[in-house]
Amino acid sequence: VSTHSPAVSDARVDSIEPETRTLSVGWEDGQRSSFHAVWLRDNCSCAECSHPSGQRLLDTLEIPDDLSIASSRLLDGGDVEISWSPGGHVSHFSTTWLRAHDYSRTDRTAPRKITLWDASIAGSLPVATYAEVRSSGRALRSWLTAVDEYGFGVLHGVTPQPEEIFRVVDLFGYVRETNYGRLFNVRSVINPTNLAFTGLALGAHTDNPYRDPTPTLQLLHCLSSSASGGDSTLVDGFRVAEALRESAPEQFDLLTRYPLHFRFRDEDTELETEVPVISLNEHGDVAAVHFNNRSKMPVILPAPLMERYYAAYRTFGRMLGSPEYQITLRLAPGDLIIMDNTRVLHGRTGFEAAGSRHLQGCYADRDGLRSRLAVLDRSETARG
Amino acid sequence: VSTHSPAVSDARVDSIEPETRTLSVGWEDGQRSSFHAVWLRDNCSCAECSHPSGQRLLDTLEIPDDLSIASSRLLDGGDVEISWSPGGHVSHFSTTWLRAHDYSRTDRTAPRKITLWDASIAGSLPVATYAEVRSSGRALRSWLTAVDEYGFGVLHGVTPQPEEIFRVVDLFGYVRETNYGRLFNVRSVINPTNLAFTGLALGAHTDNPYRDPTPTLQLLHCLSSSASGGDSTLVDGFRVAEALRESAPEQFDLLTRYPLHFRFRDEDTELETEVPVISLNEHGDVAAVHFNNRSKMPVILPAPLMERYYAAYRTFGRMLGSPEYQITLRLAPGDLIIMDNTRVLHGRTGFEAAGSRHLQGCYADRDGLRSRLAVLDRSETARG
Repeated sequence: VSTHSPAVSDARVDSIEPETRTLSVGWEDGQRSSFHAVWLRDNCSCAECSHPSGQRLLDTLEIPDDLSIASSRLLDGGDVEISWSPGGHVSHFSTTWLRAHDYSRTDRTAPRKITLWDASIAGSLPVATYAEVRSSGRALRSWLTAVDEYGFGVLHGVTPQPEEIFRVVDLFGYVRETNYGRLFNVRSVINPTNLAFTGLALGAHTDNPYRDPTPTLQLLHCLSSSASGGDSTLVDGFRVAEALRESAPEQFDLLTRYPLHFRFRDEDTELETEVPVISLNEHGDVAAVHFNNRSKMPVILPAPLMERYYAAYRTFGRMLGSPEYQITLRLAPGDLIIMDNTRVLHGRTGFEAAGSRHLQGCYADRDGLRSRLAVLDRSETARG
Repeated sequence: VSTHSPAVSDARVDSIEPETRTLSVGWEDGQRSSFHAVWLRDNCSCAECSHPSGQRLLDTLEIPDDLSIASSRLLDGGDVEISWSPGGHVSHFSTTWLRAHDYSRTDRTAPRKITLWDASIAGSLPVATYAEVRSSGRALRSWLTAVDEYGFGVLHGVTPQPEEIFRVVDLFGYVRETNYGRLFNVRSVINPTNLAFTGLALGAHTDNPYRDPTPTLQLLHCLSSSASGGDSTLVDGFRVAEALRESAPEQFDLLTRYPLHFRFRDEDTELETEVPVISLNEHGDVAAVHFNNRSKMPVILPAPLMERYYAAYRTFGRMLGSPEYQITLRLAPGDLIIMDNTRVLHGRTGFEAAGSRHLQGCYADRDGLRSRLAVLDRSETARG
């Protein structure tokens, strides 16, 4: 389990000491911080520098190279006023804002809360009913919070009729249309161009890793499921990546350093992209997992690394399929699952083409979901 | 100018020498290569290992750990047949395929062709007419090839009526719907929530860097433009990033290592994301540029780097605006520009709110465009 939320106390500014290119600040709690002049000037919030929309009007490029603090004043309550040279512009900074953005005390702002999970989550799935998330902003907020934190969620009672999945997407975002359409039907068909449309078992995978950008959300809605088999499996790719980083750091490293090629082709489509199995962000955090053995192309990397790369790939793939990390869900008509497609991998057990199994799926993006959540958080904060 | 396309000669295999875990191959041209057993087994193309759709049926995870080459045979024409132990499965590899995927001779497959440009491109813009790209697959292919290579393109004669932009997207892909709708209107409005909807000049910027994923394509279609000013500017962010890497490698490095926060808020929306100004891929190539001074949030990074970071940011921003790199286009009614939004930045000169200037814009994604292009390439190859 990994959560980040640096505590920020609300100490006020109780002294300031201007230097030429920095403002040194003393806080009530005895700590000291230093803010650079160029940074303060860039963050001036006056009506001339900042548009009512919250967007920046001040062009960072226009700040004079020889900017310095002409004078500074500590106001009642701990706010700070600075007058700049050259030019004489005056900026006002609230003590709360300065505290919240004090980069001398932390070099990193809090990312959103992520909770990694393994098979033990099966007892407490992020579940809600369609009725409640449709009728209550609070229920929707709570479910979307869980989806954002765990990378997946389940809805029960979603009317098992075609295209109802669009109503679910409407709750938080926008469909990402692709060559598969605005939605796609998952059932076995004659002459499939994609293994998803057979009754074959599918190991844990990322959908559409050959797409650029990869869809960040996937929804699957069960319309019928009388076939035996076809259970859905889910695994937290970030959790497994961290387990690999812990147990075999060199293997982890190989999977981050060398991109794979993924490809999908049919009569009207030819998609190909290049991405590593594990992507890291600039902080070294796992930012995305792309694992899809079906659409992986021949691995091309320096020959001396080939066997080690395969060992790493196979270790990671086996861990993704391990019962220690994976959960299995039997979707009944009306059930819907949503996953963060670059974090939580999904698969299914095989099923008999004879029985009926019909899912409708679609893609969407994370930004819509997080925006909706942030707006719901606002009203909750206003209410609370 | 940077282009990649390693020449692959078509020498055939003329000898093979099996070792336990590798197959050593001698080519007609006297060179030797080595292929690992696990890699060859993984790339078996028989009907049992590879689905007619081209997707992989063989589960890479199921290849035995103690796999070895039981026997191998050089066939007429240079093809190779291998029988595997344990299990006795037989694989056939064509000499052409082996040559094309010979990772001992190169550790990198050719990415798509990219040509970096500066202001001198003004004399030879990637331009086509709407009529020709609609009526001729060859003209469409040629225009899309240029868009993919240069990161932007211009169309003339796109009927200046609302929503015609959707017909243009239909030529190659799918609209990315966002909180701005399927399309957005760019003209000055009362009480704008976004500076785009004022008459202000806008410096070169990436659209929607606060979105995850950032839209990879943007289209802007001019419906009317009687206002004075409001000319469009374009700059190749990859070109400028390479110029910075050359002239100030430490500044380049800072812009790749530390992400910025970008945010957009209005009544119904709250989007925020974290991404560096310059993103590199695993090869160290520039993979994306995100520059948008209006939606940049306070810079948070280690205090000792703050002034150096600002210097790097300001240097890069000024280079983006330099006449050496930037081109200016006056869009007339019926003109449409498309940009790779994570490569080519756009801006505009200020205009009088009194005059009429009306653009319609929408977002789409690169994968659709490249897929369409690959499919057009197929028919061209078949024809040629």
